[in-house]
Amino acid sequence: MSQSPQSFTHIPLPTIRRMPSYLRILQEFQQENKEWISTTDFSGRLSLKPIQVRKDMAYTGIQGKPRLGFEVNELLNAIRRTLGWDNSADAIIVGAGALGSALLGYKGFSEHGLKLVAAFDNNPEVSGSKIHGIEVFPLEKLEDLIQRMGITIGIITVPEDFGQEIADRLINAGIRGIWNFSPVKLKVPGHVKVQKEDLASGLAVLSVMMHQEDQE
Amino acid sequence: MSQSPQSFTHIPLPTIRRMPSYLRILQEFQQENKEWISTTDFSGRLSLKPIQVRKDMAYTGIQGKPRLGFEVNELLNAIRRTLGWDNSADAIIVGAGALGSALLGYKGFSEHGLKLVAAFDNNPEVSGSKIHGIEVFPLEKLEDLIQRMGITIGIITVPEDFGQEIADRLINAGIRGIWNFSPVKLKVPGHVKVQKEDLASGLAVLSVMMHQEDQE
Repeated sequence: MSQSPQSFTHIPLPTIRRMPSYLRILQEFQQENKEWISTTDFSGRLSLKPIQVRKDMAYTGIQGKPRLGFEVNELLNAIRRTLGWDNSADAIIVGAGALGSALLGYKGFSEHGLKLVAAFDNNPEVSGSKIHGIEVFPLEKLEDLIQRMGITIGIITVPEDFGQEIADRLINAGIRGIWNFSPVKLKVPGHVKVQKEDLASGLAVLSVMMHQEDQE
Repeated sequence: MSQSPQSFTHIPLPTIRRMPSYLRILQEFQQENKEWISTTDFSGRLSLKPIQVRKDMAYTGIQGKPRLGFEVNELLNAIRRTLGWDNSADAIIVGAGALGSALLGYKGFSEHGLKLVAAFDNNPEVSGSKIHGIEVFPLEKLEDLIQRMGITIGIITVPEDFGQEIADRLINAGIRGIWNFSPVKLKVPGHVKVQKEDLASGLAVLSVMMHQEDQE
């Protein structure tokens, strides 16, 4: 069985979610000029069981060497390839409010295979300006720019009421992947993938965990 | 078996994560002066199966009435109680950079049982100022303010390298719940609950989903 990127259709979701953490540790090791990394280097830093790390690593197609572990550069490239982060994809962001601006200022995207090329906002005080060096366009230009630049990823940070309308416009213009920070469940055709980030859900989990503690 | 808030130790995580979405829809209904809400009102809007909605609702302790559904106000209060959001908890935020500022500007926290009372930053250009009406203090004041105000929830939005150090200081000062936006796996004692938000994980999932699509 091939462990090349072709097999990544079968990577379990929790493994995918852990991959960026492995990448971060590998980048540290690379900066410290370390050539090898062991399963326990990972498991200790991430509070994971060594067997879990070994299972996750199997999906990268990289084999560890006894007593040495994994070759840092090789594993780093393999994980980037596994996540499709070896080729950077252009993305646009719709909504240049507080959250949108924060995302525009986030320097880690390029390491995560994403290049923010433009932002859009219907507020005339914002459109025309630059935020963290990225130009903000009026919403009317949305479809034209997506089509002209062949953008495939759209990030939505508009208020709830506008989430679906913006998603529809993005999809009609050719967007195939939506990273949705708007608190609305988007309805999209099957060929479009949506990853929803919901801060309220995280806060609900924390709140219930803390109340459980009170009862013990 | 009692379905009072005492039983919320046993609510499944996916149910907890859906509760804020139910709340949002209930608030819409309340604003439109609707008195009743049905299982299909929820399931349609959230693309859930009706049986899933019914199971989730069972954890609130509220019984629906045949043909009418659930009483909007009653269910709204029950979900707030279930999540511990009926009493607002004071929280502080450490790190007033791009993401911290975005969170300080987020108006939804009060609906989610959270009141941001102060921010902290070690940048002298930021501390002393107000962001979205909330005062930013220098980091030296962290412990004093937490103890004096009896704060129990801390939000961490500092860079990775400082995440653990800030967490240790928060916990020593009495914080029992940490909402962690720093890309580091925190080590905390058992009485402290951590909810980690990891944007890179979400982006990894979207990236892999889109590549899977390419192969089909």
